[in-house]
Amino acid sequence: MKDHFRRFFEPQSVAVIGASSTPHKPGNDVIKNILANGYAGNIHLVNPKGGEIFGIHVYRSIQDLPEGIDLAIIILPAKANPGAVRECADRGIKAAVLAAGGFSEVDAEGEALQEELIKAIKETGIRCIGPNTSGHSSMPHCFTSSFFPLGKIPRGPISYIAQTGNFATHTMRHIATEENFGVARVVGLGNKLDLDECDILEYYSTDTETKAIFVYVESFKNPKRFLEIARDVTRIKPVILLKGGSTREGAKAAIAHTASMASDDKIVDAALRQAGVVRIYEYSHLILAAKVLALRPLPKGNRVSFLAPSGAQLVCLTDLCRRDLKLEVPQVEEETRRRLQEISPSFIRMRNPVDIWPAASVIGVMKAYREGLEAILKDPNIDAVVPILMLTDETGVPPLDFLIELCKKYSDKPILVTFSGEKEHREAAKAFLEPRGVPTFPLIEEPFKVLSILAECRRAMDRPE
Amino acid sequence: MKDHFRRFFEPQSVAVIGASSTPHKPGNDVIKNILANGYAGNIHLVNPKGGEIFGIHVYRSIQDLPEGIDLAIIILPAKANPGAVRECADRGIKAAVLAAGGFSEVDAEGEALQEELIKAIKETGIRCIGPNTSGHSSMPHCFTSSFFPLGKIPRGPISYIAQTGNFATHTMRHIATEENFGVARVVGLGNKLDLDECDILEYYSTDTETKAIFVYVESFKNPKRFLEIARDVTRIKPVILLKGGSTREGAKAAIAHTASMASDDKIVDAALRQAGVVRIYEYSHLILAAKVLALRPLPKGNRVSFLAPSGAQLVCLTDLCRRDLKLEVPQVEEETRRRLQEISPSFIRMRNPVDIWPAASVIGVMKAYREGLEAILKDPNIDAVVPILMLTDETGVPPLDFLIELCKKYSDKPILVTFSGEKEHREAAKAFLEPRGVPTFPLIEEPFKVLSILAECRRAMDRPE
Repeated sequence: MKDHFRRFFEPQSVAVIGASSTPHKPGNDVIKNILANGYAGNIHLVNPKGGEIFGIHVYRSIQDLPEGIDLAIIILPAKANPGAVRECADRGIKAAVLAAGGFSEVDAEGEALQEELIKAIKETGIRCIGPNTSGHSSMPHCFTSSFFPLGKIPRGPISYIAQTGNFATHTMRHIATEENFGVARVVGLGNKLDLDECDILEYYSTDTETKAIFVYVESFKNPKRFLEIARDVTRIKPVILLKGGSTREGAKAAIAHTASMASDDKIVDAALRQAGVVRIYEYSHLILAAKVLALRPLPKGNRVSFLAPSGAQLVCLTDLCRRDLKLEVPQVEEETRRRLQEISPSFIRMRNPVDIWPAASVIGVMKAYREGLEAILKDPNIDAVVPILMLTDETGVPPLDFLIELCKKYSDKPILVTFSGEKEHREAAKAFLEPRGVPTFPLIEEPFKVLSILAECRRAMDRPE
Repeated sequence: MKDHFRRFFEPQSVAVIGASSTPHKPGNDVIKNILANGYAGNIHLVNPKGGEIFGIHVYRSIQDLPEGIDLAIIILPAKANPGAVRECADRGIKAAVLAAGGFSEVDAEGEALQEELIKAIKETGIRCIGPNTSGHSSMPHCFTSSFFPLGKIPRGPISYIAQTGNFATHTMRHIATEENFGVARVVGLGNKLDLDECDILEYYSTDTETKAIFVYVESFKNPKRFLEIARDVTRIKPVILLKGGSTREGAKAAIAHTASMASDDKIVDAALRQAGVVRIYEYSHLILAAKVLALRPLPKGNRVSFLAPSGAQLVCLTDLCRRDLKLEVPQVEEETRRRLQEISPSFIRMRNPVDIWPAASVIGVMKAYREGLEAILKDPNIDAVVPILMLTDETGVPPLDFLIELCKKYSDKPILVTFSGEKEHREAAKAFLEPRGVPTFPLIEEPFKVLSILAECRRAMDRPE
């Protein structure tokens, strides 16, 4: 691993420049976050006032810091950044996270300041994330430089590259509290004066903790290098990318956000596809597709089955798969059909997709779903299955252990769960299933949209040389 | 109102043929549903065993029933239906709901039975909903013929026509418990041997309780008549339609479901558009678009604004509006811009969409959203607004009364709320807002997809003669 990656993602000791004793200030929240995540390295604090914060000694200046610090987190006003970078470099610090906004994304004055900062970075050779970043996180190392109150961040196999502060902030809280999956590394790129999406992608590509990579960018600093790195890594792990500013109006919003200039979207699109990067178009899919990849394997292909308690859902979801999602809903083997027929009343001819209501009314809801699901999972023509669980006051929440067991038994075929029925039971089922590794979705169309994205990842992985 | 519509939707007295004293049987659940919804008419029960059910006298045969019954709900095995229809007609009953499945949707034997049933209906002149229906509901009359356990169905301005039993069952429970809106009339068409989507659309078109009409069909029994009725009603209320079986594979599933033969989808599409019917493609939108129309007015056009706490969301949602949804994100007036600038730090140049984070960090989350939202609502260039509320442990759930007040004050501009952040606070906000008339959405893209549907309804309503 390159030295600077180690300093950012496995720092042995860090310094917070601009540490604050005032609750809710970024210079205070960052320390809270580091402590909440159980960081095992040394924490040094700097503030001209000195004293102690959370029982940790506060140095009055950067010059006073001990030697051998891996990483500085600089939380100072924009105009203090160039000086702080030079002082850190003088003290032998070779990596820094620059939190402040107020540079080229703002006005001419900010642009001038940015030029000064670029000069400081170049002249000192210090490696930087930011400025205008809400920080980065490295959960296998129990470390974060985020200054937005995050508490304990759950650890998992998903890594994010995000050209927006939002990811390290409320989106992370959304993931942690609503979606029940964990992350390996998260980097808010900010203005990318030094490290950019290429560097981080390069690190993630060899990072054994990272199983899948999600990228949100509004511009490519070095498109050629990004595509080169992507070309290789997409053969071993999925790279899923949302590009902001793909329309003229969106591009205007991107200029206001990160001063990014849009490239011609069609050229971007073709180049990314060729490099095996899977492009998505909705912010929510950065979260929902990640949830499935965090919990389940990548499906082997695009052949889906689903079990629904409603004929209308069977019809509409088949339409959705075929019309919009490039998913196949193939016929199952005769043996599978026979098994499905065994649990169903004779008047209904069973097929894929599976109408589970008649079976449920004869042998009970849970048994019908369990046996139906296992018959489908055994079928060699099916790569992934979506059971739409019917949860009413009559069914309550039936024991759902069978779903956990089937996930383990057929571990190469993702099972994505969604629901029809009563709010209370849907939520109870989600709260039971997701911490046990079974992803769930509030809207019945979402698991299919995610499977379409994952099937594209598989195609990218298996694409010819 | 035609007599048979009065009998189905405002019956003065009903008979349940096949009433059952056994809990969880359809013949028992139907009585429970009628009682739970506070039906004020007379309830008559028929079962050869006689006795009492829920304290109501049970007649031993249809012949024993008193005269003057408006509607029979026939919950008997398929083969008993033709006879029961004739007996009801003999007793002077002129309308019936036929619950049983097992006709042409099943096999050749069912088809023969269906022929016999058609004959009975024709010869007696009785008007029927079904067979193979889970019933119908008429909430202004506090009445339902549904035999799936539903409890009290909330009353509201939305009416459904559904060629599937599912609507009267778990989807209604989903609506009642998760989506917080109410319905006026719901009809499960079933096999449409007599009344079909045309008849029900005709009734809904003059029904003052129905503000918007949602249709799920897999086939049109009389396309020409449907389009003729639609052509007029779409000028006064939205008609939103999901057609199952729009792909070859979906059409196969539709044959299995309701024995419906698909028509050429492109012809269907053009004809519907010309008649002002707005076509949708996702089952969930039957619910989410209905929620907005139940709670808020139809927007005057397709010009949206939104307030987001994240630059990435501003960019991605602008892209979504422009690329996929035919929504405009127009510039606001100078006066609006000035108001937005007043609440924001000077370094950020305010525009539409509204980056609310800088304002929130200066004047507080609630005040920023309130003032920002009001500035936008005043702007004549904007037809609808989506605030993406940032809810974290720091904000908690701020007092959200201002959203209710703004909805009232600017009652012609729908406000659709979505969230970014902590699960617990999102749910608390939803639980506060929806019963007070403000629709909310779990995924940030959904309010825009719904606004796109509603803008199409507006275009249909305002289309030239």
